[in-house]
Amino acid sequence: MSPITNSRTLFNEVPIGYPEPGRTTIHDTSMSIDLETEPLKGGFLVKTLVLSIDPYLRGKMREATKASYSAPFAKGEPITNFGIGVVLRSEHSGIKVGDHIYGVLPFQEYFVRSDASSFAVIANEEGLPWSVYIGMAGMPGQTAYVGWNEFSKAKKGETAFITTAAGPVGSFVVQLAKLDGLKVIASAGSDEKVEFVRSLGADVVFNYKKESTEEVLQREGGLDIYWDNVGGETLDLALKYANKRARFIECGMITTYNNPDGYGVKNLAEIFKKDMSMHGFINGNWFGKYREQFYQEVPKLVKEGKIQYQEDITRGLEHAGQGILDVQQGTNKGKKVILVADE
Amino acid sequence: MSPITNSRTLFNEVPIGYPEPGRTTIHDTSMSIDLETEPLKGGFLVKTLVLSIDPYLRGKMREATKASYSAPFAKGEPITNFGIGVVLRSEHSGIKVGDHIYGVLPFQEYFVRSDASSFAVIANEEGLPWSVYIGMAGMPGQTAYVGWNEFSKAKKGETAFITTAAGPVGSFVVQLAKLDGLKVIASAGSDEKVEFVRSLGADVVFNYKKESTEEVLQREGGLDIYWDNVGGETLDLALKYANKRARFIECGMITTYNNPDGYGVKNLAEIFKKDMSMHGFINGNWFGKYREQFYQEVPKLVKEGKIQYQEDITRGLEHAGQGILDVQQGTNKGKKVILVADE
Repeated sequence: MSPITNSRTLFNEVPIGYPEPGRTTIHDTSMSIDLETEPLKGGFLVKTLVLSIDPYLRGKMREATKASYSAPFAKGEPITNFGIGVVLRSEHSGIKVGDHIYGVLPFQEYFVRSDASSFAVIANEEGLPWSVYIGMAGMPGQTAYVGWNEFSKAKKGETAFITTAAGPVGSFVVQLAKLDGLKVIASAGSDEKVEFVRSLGADVVFNYKKESTEEVLQREGGLDIYWDNVGGETLDLALKYANKRARFIECGMITTYNNPDGYGVKNLAEIFKKDMSMHGFINGNWFGKYREQFYQEVPKLVKEGKIQYQEDITRGLEHAGQGILDVQQGTNKGKKVILVADE
Repeated sequence: MSPITNSRTLFNEVPIGYPEPGRTTIHDTSMSIDLETEPLKGGFLVKTLVLSIDPYLRGKMREATKASYSAPFAKGEPITNFGIGVVLRSEHSGIKVGDHIYGVLPFQEYFVRSDASSFAVIANEEGLPWSVYIGMAGMPGQTAYVGWNEFSKAKKGETAFITTAAGPVGSFVVQLAKLDGLKVIASAGSDEKVEFVRSLGADVVFNYKKESTEEVLQREGGLDIYWDNVGGETLDLALKYANKRARFIECGMITTYNNPDGYGVKNLAEIFKKDMSMHGFINGNWFGKYREQFYQEVPKLVKEGKIQYQEDITRGLEHAGQGILDVQQGTNKGKKVILVADE
């Protein structure tokens, strides 16, 4: 077999504000690979199937000198994120041809690794689409599951406000909250997303671009739980309409990622006035505690249709840069997935 | 005995910005009382000895229509706060002449009450000055004790940053943190206050008006615990220099009380980036859990000199308005006490 193109999405430049496809990241086709003769040196060759696009990737697009919880992307190298690949060849004792591996993959069609320790082999006994394992049964689903179970202290009859409720994290949280018997107020950024969230059972769903968040919270609050994916002004309003002993779960703040000098939060005094708590978390630091329970429960719930999800799948690595921008701007319609290749 | 003047400090007007003595509150001497003949109607007559001035009083100086954790002051009525009084006459079965009662008292030299349920009779077996029971052994001490024990999760060798560290809450927290074996960074607003806090054993003490908080935190942080009495810009810096899994205890935000539309906090994304928690609390909602332990432990610690304190005592109810302003501006030198009368 002769060499074939091995496309990659390279990190090119730290963006100011929103990332720009073709500038922040570039689609590169200069590399080629011979799948039959590529040396494995005791490792394994992987064909990338699906890659996830998540909001947090924006934080990795920074100067390498700036510290943060997640390592920065290296300029000129492929960007990386959670994905699923299938093993084409292996000289590794723990990895077989045909294994489906889950972990942080490069945005690259084919790659060789020698260390298997950061990958999990997914059995997928439920026969779910592989994309589910980077969505509801992947990092976003884990994030929802861990955050809700660890920090919500949800009690039946309470009220939760969930932002970015059509996204993979938010939509899972909405469903967890309804399973726990809460009244759910949920916000999303388009009428289509609002419809989807309503179909999940949320009690009050609104398009925050059309309806005033404050008016909705004034009418439908106070809040016992706030699931924050947005930060900024919405967080300020949630503080204002929080009940005593409210729990705020700080999962993300997408309104601040592309505008770090923007909105400053002024209602923080509510935290002591109302005996409140705020918990921030990074899923990877907590998931160990829930891993077994999560994989026993969640793929089954998805298979049985008890947890619904929505995906926005784009075929082709060349669309990764646009996918990243879509997620930052919220124009995606469900969990953003780059389908790199079929099996 | 003929009637004597019964002075009061009346709430007169909701302030914009800082409270103004003589305008926000007024000293009133129009009322008189005959201590021998004032009808008790089954109640008891109290002579006010000491009254506390605390930062939170600013929050009670608001329009009656605005809800908050603590009831607003009523216009034309005496302001109220924690104090100690001695009982002069009593027709109440549970209250004896000579009892010293602790509770929320009116800023008024003499008053009659029929309901004793909101007062505690203080035995004061240690023979401490009565002012201690509105300071280290009163609400401020309780606040420090409850907040530290409930939320700090302090571990030996960790670093805590404590603001308004010369005040009655902050200075107690500094000492609790040192008893737990922590490195203590502490800030105060004058060189005299800095000296006092240093004498309590704090490792790094600085005058935030002379030295840059950011430079100190950059040099001496990261922070595992932040005790917040100030909010605003200092809170933003504490977020920036927090360690992973840092605990922020939100006790007060004096920089915001007189300027609610001021500084907006921008570094809140650190909460999830660093797996942090923030806990706000109102002492009165948590103290029940610690009451017994507190009164067994704290007066003894004070008596033995193991907990140090500093008081700024002004004699005469006519100085209450100025005392309130001093505490808002931080020009007091220790726990602010109005000494209304000797025994």
